[in-house]
Amino acid sequence: MVGGGNGGNIGNSHRRGAAMDNMAVLSAGCFTRNSERNLADGQYWGVDPSRIYRDYREMADKESQRKDGIDFVSIVTPNATHYEITKCFLEHGIHVVCEKPFTLDVKQAEELKALADEKGLNVCVTFTYAHYPVLRECRELIASGALGKIIEVVAEYPQDWMILGLNSEEDNFTKWIGDPKKSGNSNVTAAMGVHLYYLMKSMTGLQLEKVLADFSYYPENAPLETSARIMMGFSDNIHGFCWASNTAIGHDCTVTLKIYGEKGSIEWSHEDMSHLKVAKLGGPVQLYAANRAYLSEPARHASRIPAGHPEGFYEAFANIYHEFCRHLLDKKNGAMQSPAQYFYPKAQDGVDAVRFVQACVKSQANGNTWVRLDADFS
Amino acid sequence: MVGGGNGGNIGNSHRRGAAMDNMAVLSAGCFTRNSERNLADGQYWGVDPSRIYRDYREMADKESQRKDGIDFVSIVTPNATHYEITKCFLEHGIHVVCEKPFTLDVKQAEELKALADEKGLNVCVTFTYAHYPVLRECRELIASGALGKIIEVVAEYPQDWMILGLNSEEDNFTKWIGDPKKSGNSNVTAAMGVHLYYLMKSMTGLQLEKVLADFSYYPENAPLETSARIMMGFSDNIHGFCWASNTAIGHDCTVTLKIYGEKGSIEWSHEDMSHLKVAKLGGPVQLYAANRAYLSEPARHASRIPAGHPEGFYEAFANIYHEFCRHLLDKKNGAMQSPAQYFYPKAQDGVDAVRFVQACVKSQANGNTWVRLDADFS
Amino acid sequence: MVGGGNGGNIGNSHRRGAAMDNMAVLSAGCFTRNSERNLADGQYWGVDPSRIYRDYREMADKESQRKDGIDFVSIVTPNATHYEITKCFLEHGIHVVCEKPFTLDVKQAEELKALADEKGLNVCVTFTYAHYPVLRECRELIASGALGKIIEVVAEYPQDWMILGLNSEEDNFTKWIGDPKKSGNSNVTAAMGVHLYYLMKSMTGLQLEKVLADFSYYPENAPLETSARIMMGFSDNIHGFCWASNTAIGHDCTVTLKIYGEKGSIEWSHEDMSHLKVAKLGGPVQLYAANRAYLSEPARHASRIPAGHPEGFYEAFANIYHEFCRHLLDKKNGAMQSPAQYFYPKAQDGVDAVRFVQACVKSQANGNTWVRLDADFS
Amino acid sequence: MVGGGNGGNIGNSHRRGAAMDNMAVLSAGCFTRNSERNLADGQYWGVDPSRIYRDYREMADKESQRKDGIDFVSIVTPNATHYEITKCFLEHGIHVVCEKPFTLDVKQAEELKALADEKGLNVCVTFTYAHYPVLRECRELIASGALGKIIEVVAEYPQDWMILGLNSEEDNFTKWIGDPKKSGNSNVTAAMGVHLYYLMKSMTGLQLEKVLADFSYYPENAPLETSARIMMGFSDNIHGFCWASNTAIGHDCTVTLKIYGEKGSIEWSHEDMSHLKVAKLGGPVQLYAANRAYLSEPARHASRIPAGHPEGFYEAFANIYHEFCRHLLDKKNGAMQSPAQYFYPKAQDGVDAVRFVQACVKSQANGNTWVRLDADFS
Repeated sequence: MVGGGNGGNIGNSHRRGAAMDNMAVLSAGCFTRNSERNLADGQYWGVDPSRIYRDYREMADKESQRKDGIDFVSIVTPNATHYEITKCFLEHGIHVVCEKPFTLDVKQAEELKALADEKGLNVCVTFTYAHYPVLRECRELIASGALGKIIEVVAEYPQDWMILGLNSEEDNFTKWIGDPKKSGNSNVTAAMGVHLYYLMKSMTGLQLEKVLADFSYYPENAPLETSARIMMGFSDNIHGFCWASNTAIGHDCTVTLKIYGEKGSIEWSHEDMSHLKVAKLGGPVQLYAANRAYLSEPARHASRIPAGHPEGFYEAFANIYHEFCRHLLDKKNGAMQSPAQYFYPKAQDGVDAVRFVQACVKSQANGNTWVRLDADFS
Repeated sequence: MVGGGNGGNIGNSHRRGAAMDNMAVLSAGCFTRNSERNLADGQYWGVDPSRIYRDYREMADKESQRKDGIDFVSIVTPNATHYEITKCFLEHGIHVVCEKPFTLDVKQAEELKALADEKGLNVCVTFTYAHYPVLRECRELIASGALGKIIEVVAEYPQDWMILGLNSEEDNFTKWIGDPKKSGNSNVTAAMGVHLYYLMKSMTGLQLEKVLADFSYYPENAPLETSARIMMGFSDNIHGFCWASNTAIGHDCTVTLKIYGEKGSIEWSHEDMSHLKVAKLGGPVQLYAANRAYLSEPARHASRIPAGHPEGFYEAFANIYHEFCRHLLDKKNGAMQSPAQYFYPKAQDGVDAVRFVQACVKSQANGNTWVRLDADFS
Repeated sequence: MVGGGNGGNIGNSHRRGAAMDNMAVLSAGCFTRNSERNLADGQYWGVDPSRIYRDYREMADKESQRKDGIDFVSIVTPNATHYEITKCFLEHGIHVVCEKPFTLDVKQAEELKALADEKGLNVCVTFTYAHYPVLRECRELIASGALGKIIEVVAEYPQDWMILGLNSEEDNFTKWIGDPKKSGNSNVTAAMGVHLYYLMKSMTGLQLEKVLADFSYYPENAPLETSARIMMGFSDNIHGFCWASNTAIGHDCTVTLKIYGEKGSIEWSHEDMSHLKVAKLGGPVQLYAANRAYLSEPARHASRIPAGHPEGFYEAFANIYHEFCRHLLDKKNGAMQSPAQYFYPKAQDGVDAVRFVQACVKSQANGNTWVRLDADFS
Repeated sequence: MVGGGNGGNIGNSHRRGAAMDNMAVLSAGCFTRNSERNLADGQYWGVDPSRIYRDYREMADKESQRKDGIDFVSIVTPNATHYEITKCFLEHGIHVVCEKPFTLDVKQAEELKALADEKGLNVCVTFTYAHYPVLRECRELIASGALGKIIEVVAEYPQDWMILGLNSEEDNFTKWIGDPKKSGNSNVTAAMGVHLYYLMKSMTGLQLEKVLADFSYYPENAPLETSARIMMGFSDNIHGFCWASNTAIGHDCTVTLKIYGEKGSIEWSHEDMSHLKVAKLGGPVQLYAANRAYLSEPARHASRIPAGHPEGFYEAFANIYHEFCRHLLDKKNGAMQSPAQYFYPKAQDGVDAVRFVQACVKSQANGNTWVRLDADFS
């Protein structure tokens, strides 16, 4: 692991998610620049002091030379550093799990993707919400044609942390997330909107072709957007939209996804993350519950506890790591299936997310016009 | 009443809503063109045969000449006839309750509004959803500043009747509602989107200045839109959006409204029409229930039954008629307060709704660009 | 109508419920003992002054002699008077709708039932909650065997009006409802528990054979119970329980019913009165919604408005009156079906409810032992 | 760890819960009687082969002699073996976490409790549901007097696993759980009812004095009860009840708890485990969410992830282990606070639960009469 010094929420999510199914062990790391705390943190997490490194380059060097070196690295450092660290590990032949965003600009993301492909390495960018157990069922249902042809996709993600932070006298991360010098040219679209895009894409398999974004700002003179309303044009002339706001008082983390087809629909809400509302044309809404025998095999395998015992955010994280590790193990054992058989967010998803953000930013700059995702953002 | 021959759902809503609080009695009418059924229907509803008329012009003539003639007429005829019938009764000095839409084009709507103003007559256009008891509390809370300055408004209305009807072998109203010859240049925006706009407006008092609409069509070659995603620009640079679809399988009539301010937020859903989610910055979400003592006086007066006993769609309808009749009675008795004190959708709301639809249609025609509501739509 | 002087909530429910489907017209009445207000109220409700009576005996006499006299009377007077008034109208050959409780003691209730049977008259005692549209579906599903053999029935009804009233400085009805001189030997069991019993019985058709009740009291020295926990033994050795409390802070009127069978279950909650949760063994929970095409014909006929438009308490009331009037009309027209085809609470239901209350009271007095409903309570 | 051979659900819950906060490491164990699998499992979980033992006695012996021996053992073996294994480790001076039930009879439970007390050792019996983050807030609110004097406590736990298993052709654990030879004299009360009792006790601090139980059986001739309805008499003349059924089709694991006081109430449901409904007399219901700043310090500390990111069953388990380990560490470091400051289910809770089951069984055997928990059950 690189980053994730003791106490960080993101680092804990990765550590707990990776360890959950006993498929990975934290064996080496470089947790923080403060060398004393680095050593203490690493030992606290059970890492042998000889494999706690001062900087990530040293770590990549040394670990890539050990016979028992790490198979993959988890990168949970500040956003602006993802590019260089990922690049370094890929160059050393080490697979990568990178906290989102993959990078801050499109060119860098595509460079990393190309590098990984060239080296035959796997990259995972952790968009988590799509990996709750019942969303595995959602994906299977759609792939099986249960909804018929998709006709509309809708998602939203209101939250209140930005407005809470702005109203707080304490120093907090909303101070830097609203600052373009520190977080690039997007606030809520990059922080939250991308999750909606990945959810839509990973569930439906639809290709997003273009967006039309309308941003708003709180306070009015804020340099980066705090609410983004985004119209979306998918392949096959399918339309949809999403909305993300971090100034929506009263919401914890209310991600909602609705997918409408010609024959049925599916609705999922993070507030009730263990159920799926599945409707067939003309029939009653059905509540699919996690880990029930009527679910598909992949969906049942995405659960760990008997139905009715909630699996939360860490378990969703663990599902990503589980699939990523399964991919690596199958590769090692020469039993690899097609990449699509391993359900985790890959390098291409990381690239797409950066393109999505840049397309939205450009749409807003252009006065709310359609911008294609394959536009040139350099 | 004009229209509403026995069996019609809309006619029943008006009859039941008008009678609920014993403030109006059905005394005269012209219910259908079939003269036999007209007579039968009228008598079934307790109307004296001498006041059951063959056509609305005769009714307006005769009733306006009677000393005990009707105070107001309820018009529940097909949409395309609203203009001429409303005009006729206004010309005869009779107040009007008109089912929405007010008219099919802006010019006609404005003409009727001007005529009513000139004659000093009251017009009500029945947009119903804003008139559930707890939404009265919503309006009072916002007016009192409980949410601070509004920063975003969001609403949606997915329903499945269009896709159900299109898949049905029986003849049904989706056949004509999708036909531009019968329903003008808009399907879902005119039928459902306008409800969202009126909800937003009547709750917040904000002025809608412009819209940017993205329509989609089911089946793909349908002449009129079946889903409308609409970005909205309100006065004071406040943004929002709404979405209406009648091809969203699994939804009955799931109107949802969310209003975000600097200090708090309110969320309401038609599925739980007797509660309001009220959140203050940093505090827990509170569930306000209809007819509770902690509500404001106007909100308590908008309920009829002790808390916990649901008041449904007819009671929301009755709240419109109650306020409309109260307005007429106060006028009669020379005790009229300012019009704003009577909470029902008025002629201006009818005009605004027509402008809203035309602005959306134009935005779509223009390739999804912003269109001002005060544009020229002739 | 007898009783229901202007302003009373119960009177309004009956008036609105009876008028809803245009099957009954308020033609005569005796609304209050204050003769001035009696006349004013009657006229306000559109009753011809010549048919507004000073007392109910005069009304029964005169109306039974008129050729166009009332077909039935609705009795909404204080509980203690139900017996004598019902008796009087039955003796005059007039059908009766009586607000619950039917009477305060078993002997009186059985006497009225016998009298009605002897005279061939219909009696309705208005237990309302079972008459929401989707509960009609519940009844049909169970009758059709969809749940298999019933194995357990559970219901609850917590509310807070008693504890609110006791804490209020204003005079309110909790003062008399807690007073044995005014409301007999039971408070919450008679006021609320009986609703649960009727719900269970009318949905399942099961016969309740015995109860074991545990009462509690707030304040501790209150003479009548404010919470009743009741174990229930039905025919065929089926067990269940119910709980009613009027000191449960936070609840409006949260009636919940759960019925479990060998093959499936049904759950209904008053808070979401338009949906039914239907589960089949091993399958997902299904949400049946009112007025959907997949419902049985009787359930669809119990709705008035398209799916998704809530029908509330008045509409449930109207369903009782609808069935009662249909029964009378079919009788008049010589087209009467078996009484079971008319779904409204009948005299026997009124008798059973009084027996239920007395059995619970006796169980508590006996130190929480089983008491049979067919015990001698004289 | 003793028991928990690879694949077992309970073993995984303990392993994941114990490891979550990095306060414990799995260092030794005896996982199954099959020595080959035992070794494989232990190594899979990272245990040094030299500390994987053939039987628990050897483990207790050897570990108690090592300087770096285990501080505590987690016992996740079949119910009937809990007594002897716990006894063995306590005798060797090792703290114990024991999966519930503590023992199958009262005498054994009390013996273990006395032994632990005598040895100054800590025992934890894992009743999990009370340890979701927001229930920590519930406990604090009640302790702070926010509800006033408690007046009624109600809980239920319907589930369908027994009826599902009985209808399944595959072999499954419902075959032995219904067999008195294998699971003692109670099925659903011991398996599920005890959770409700512990929830009530740990939240309110009330002492349960007596119970009156009514059991039912599915199929009718089943030797052990599949549904238990239990009236409860607490100290201070406070009454309540609970209901547990494992033949309730449609329910996953729907634990619900409702606590009513003179000034307010709290409701919690496992289906929405991250929220608490808190009502004050006369005020709106408030939804308290996990990890919000308005919560008490202990409740905030019981969460690991920002508000809105669900923490599930493993995290509740982790909260038990966290508090248990904190207790041990403070003891080690001589900084121990009063035992009440460490919130986990202790030996006394284990004893009480066994008494609860036996009192219910006796009440049923006695024909549904009150039985005191301090009765003699030998």
